[in-house]
Amino acid sequence: MADTRTRILDVSLTLFNERGTANVTTNHIAEALCMSPGNLYYHFRNKAEIVRELFARIMLCWADNYALPQDKALTLKTIDVMAAGNFEIQWRYRFFFRDLALLLGADPKLAELYRGNRETGMANTVALLRDFIASGLMHPADRKTLDEITQLLWLVGDLWLVFREAGGGELCKADMDQGVRLFRRILAPHMIKDKLK
Amino acid sequence: MADTRTRILDVSLTLFNERGTANVTTNHIAEALCMSPGNLYYHFRNKAEIVRELFARIMLCWADNYALPQDKALTLKTIDVMAAGNFEIQWRYRFFFRDLALLLGADPKLAELYRGNRETGMANTVALLRDFIASGLMHPADRKTLDEITQLLWLVGDLWLVFREAGGGELCKADMDQGVRLFRRILAPHMIKDKLK
Repeated sequence: MADTRTRILDVSLTLFNERGTANVTTNHIAEALCMSPGNLYYHFRNKAEIVRELFARIMLCWADNYALPQDKALTLKTIDVMAAGNFEIQWRYRFFFRDLALLLGADPKLAELYRGNRETGMANTVALLRDFIASGLMHPADRKTLDEITQLLWLVGDLWLVFREAGGGELCKADMDQGVRLFRRILAPHMIKDKLK
Repeated sequence: MADTRTRILDVSLTLFNERGTANVTTNHIAEALCMSPGNLYYHFRNKAEIVRELFARIMLCWADNYALPQDKALTLKTIDVMAAGNFEIQWRYRFFFRDLALLLGADPKLAELYRGNRETGMANTVALLRDFIASGLMHPADRKTLDEITQLLWLVGDLWLVFREAGGGELCKADMDQGVRLFRRILAPHMIKDKLK
């Protein structure tokens, strides 16, 4: 059986995704775990701490998703797998993306974590695009173009769900496929073999 | 001197932009106008009504910005002017874009207006891209590609500010220039003369 800390995080994630972060209190979380609020506070002092820990999980998922394959050549397939993986993560932790602006506004520590990760992450994306170029998958491009492609990928990667949800109707996992298609649409014109189209 | 209704809308826009919609009440608005709350209520029953009226202004600005020039050929310059105009509007009404998810969640009537406008607007964008193609400015593209380009333009057009703000630091008008550059980055690979780069 998972340890208590892990169980608290798992149940919090489910409740946040189902009801939205603002509508879930630590009491709701304790209740769903048949745990006393005191026991929960022993592990996490407040909801913000739980959210930060879940964001740490997201960062680990991203690091894993975007790690370059060891001893294997980069292919268009690699890019496709990364794009699909990115939106799998966005779906799994969807509360975070839906409530992004609110969460960052409410917790300066989380905002700092998010911003540090985004800065490093965007630099990594530029480096990854350079690997695509070096592998002959992508047309050479100047720094400004690579920066703009990176910003578009991150904008879609962080806010596709918000845009989709603003359009109305129930969100579902299949909505993530359109996010993957938008990643491809951003990259397609820059790839040498136009297989991404 | 502007009529009372117009003055209420102008002052509301300024306060919403400065403080965020959530931190402004109708009492604050009345106070800033040296007006009794009763007088304000005579014109607008609540804050939601003011926000909806401001959104109606945004829709008018958009319609004006994206109207095709009469008796004039479409040029790359037209596209540049439209892109710049789009982010002028986003900056002038920035409260709306920053608080988009919150505002739509709080007012079903506003959500309906926004969604109706977005649906029509996205169809108009596809039609505009087809005009670009017909004018020899853009490479022919299938419907799926045009839809994806349109979604990217709308995602950046609606959420660039949110993405920018999540990155930290004070927002300023110059941040809008990067939005314009992202519009160009989305369109550039599809244009026949690569002047947009």
